[in-house]
Amino acid sequence: MAKKSDTKPKLKPRDTETIEQIVSLANGIVTAAGGGRDLSIDIPTRSLANVRYNKTRKILEMGKGTNSRQLFNLSQAKSYMQTILVAQGASRLIGEGKSNSIRGLYYTLKHKIAPTSENTFEDQAECDPIIEDLEVILGSLREELHLFADNRGGMVGNIILEDSGDEINCGRMGSGGYAVPSIVEPEVIRFKECTAKFVLHVEKGTVWQRFNEDKFWRNNNCILTHGAGQPPRGVRRMLYRLHNELKLPIYCLLDNDPWGYYIYSVIKQGSINLAYESQRMAIPEARFLGLRSSDYERCALSDSVQIALNDTDRKRAKQIAGYPWFAHKKSWQKEIDKMLDNGFKLEVEALISKDISYVTEEYTPQRLKDQDWLD
Amino acid sequence: MAKKSDTKPKLKPRDTETIEQIVSLANGIVTAAGGGRDLSIDIPTRSLANVRYNKTRKILEMGKGTNSRQLFNLSQAKSYMQTILVAQGASRLIGEGKSNSIRGLYYTLKHKIAPTSENTFEDQAECDPIIEDLEVILGSLREELHLFADNRGGMVGNIILEDSGDEINCGRMGSGGYAVPSIVEPEVIRFKECTAKFVLHVEKGTVWQRFNEDKFWRNNNCILTHGAGQPPRGVRRMLYRLHNELKLPIYCLLDNDPWGYYIYSVIKQGSINLAYESQRMAIPEARFLGLRSSDYERCALSDSVQIALNDTDRKRAKQIAGYPWFAHKKSWQKEIDKMLDNGFKLEVEALISKDISYVTEEYTPQRLKDQDWLD
Repeated sequence: MAKKSDTKPKLKPRDTETIEQIVSLANGIVTAAGGGRDLSIDIPTRSLANVRYNKTRKILEMGKGTNSRQLFNLSQAKSYMQTILVAQGASRLIGEGKSNSIRGLYYTLKHKIAPTSENTFEDQAECDPIIEDLEVILGSLREELHLFADNRGGMVGNIILEDSGDEINCGRMGSGGYAVPSIVEPEVIRFKECTAKFVLHVEKGTVWQRFNEDKFWRNNNCILTHGAGQPPRGVRRMLYRLHNELKLPIYCLLDNDPWGYYIYSVIKQGSINLAYESQRMAIPEARFLGLRSSDYERCALSDSVQIALNDTDRKRAKQIAGYPWFAHKKSWQKEIDKMLDNGFKLEVEALISKDISYVTEEYTPQRLKDQDWLD
Repeated sequence: MAKKSDTKPKLKPRDTETIEQIVSLANGIVTAAGGGRDLSIDIPTRSLANVRYNKTRKILEMGKGTNSRQLFNLSQAKSYMQTILVAQGASRLIGEGKSNSIRGLYYTLKHKIAPTSENTFEDQAECDPIIEDLEVILGSLREELHLFADNRGGMVGNIILEDSGDEINCGRMGSGGYAVPSIVEPEVIRFKECTAKFVLHVEKGTVWQRFNEDKFWRNNNCILTHGAGQPPRGVRRMLYRLHNELKLPIYCLLDNDPWGYYIYSVIKQGSINLAYESQRMAIPEARFLGLRSSDYERCALSDSVQIALNDTDRKRAKQIAGYPWFAHKKSWQKEIDKMLDNGFKLEVEALISKDISYVTEEYTPQRLKDQDWLD
């Protein structure tokens, strides 16, 4: 039977570009082989030593360090082969107009190399870093290689977008909301109409439900997002696009604890391990709206909402205070010192304990009105 | 400033009923106190000993055992107080027409009992079981007490529903889909129009994305859901309503491993720990479409997709084989034996390794056509 997938899709411009890059990588190898030269690929180094904080652009950047991965080197031959396999896998996906999960790709590429009993990949942990290698080789995000991760996070608010040809009115999404997909590149998601003036990003789905139920986004003309904890790439990239294409300020309402600081740090500067994504994911202008260490007194919270800091919290807080983008900011040093001094952390839910709609109807509107945030 | 929440909402019939039940519980206590009698609440026992499998109805049920919780009993006084607090908290939420997370409720109810330094609750782990107690006392699901958990899971397909007054066309939800909310009771979600003939429930968000991208639901006229692993209550309750109100068969496409069996078991019979939910959550007619232990040979999969069983897998598999609803079914005994015999488990992604759209265009349509499933 003819499979529905047999019809070749028309490639989008960005897809054509990515395939051309992969083909050019492959051509380089063929030429080198034909010329009897050593086969190698230069891969920008993804280690911490090759990451620096660009104070002007205010994002994490990779340095110019590269590593050469060679076929005729016993310790590199396998990863050389894996790199080519992943490139081939991505090129096939793009050509077919389909996308796959990073786990799905690993399965697709794993096979025994006959007549040996060697596998191309032993497990997914061997495949994931090679995907990251290919991202830096090509200067493409994995989403552009048609690879996705699990999707988490939701969105509602005064914006209409087009997703794969369907019009999504985020102002008419009920209590559930629009599930932010894993791939939100312009080839998939197009912004059609936006009257919202800013984005409020909250940490947890449960807090998001509270804000959505109180129609915060309607009363304050904004977009409301959450990332179910540390936001996945899809949500980060969506925030980036909302900020850069629609010029919307991004306000983050996170817990007053090291984990909340870290979530903000990743949204703002990118992840240290994946510095190469920063230029298309990081939002240096994102603002930290709360919770603040001073909220315990300012909001007259009851002492039952205190959660004592443990050793890990204290250690993490000090690490984060030392990040280059926080180290020279008095406001952040004061903020983190105050939390350590308090000896406790606070969750956004602490505000809900004051009054169920205190956080949506008083706290957040007041912080915004007073322009009272950290950046 | 007047808070927007000051206006009293009009209660929905089910909400009025729940509040009346809580008031009646409270009145009983007042009457007993006035009459100088001991204050106690009878709580249906939620232990395993009080759970039985009803072979006729094919669901888990609670027995008739109850425990008396007394105020004038040193070991029960605190939980007695907590029960009343949770009832009061729920009644207030319903009265305000708002909902809260179970964590938010814990925060709201936690306070020092002056002049002592005792807290009403020490942590959330003390509050959650009391919520379950109240559910069984009132015969209400926690969703009817206006309490929600984190929401996970997504949905697309040929159905139009109304969520909090917004019309959601699940056939026009792009790549992201509709995020299934935590509370999907008829007061929130109304089914408006459905042309779909069945529901395909898949385990993981990444597999769901594969099916959605291939427009499986359009080609096969169905609804496509996932629960991001073990489906949360919102998704289970949604499946239950789709099955019971719209008479749609539910097919589950899960991994061929003990975890996949267990997910199916919970969808089908309910969770053993929360047997009281079963009559409004369990779907005894749900069908297990795959993956099957015989698929390795039947689908001619490569040996690289095998994942070796470990001791925990083998132990869990035997436990599950002993569940009353599997114990007397030859088909399930054979299925589980075959997996143990294979010595390996298989994930749905194994089918994707054969061909990216094999699972959406061949495997699943063929299984459905052949009515080849377990139940």
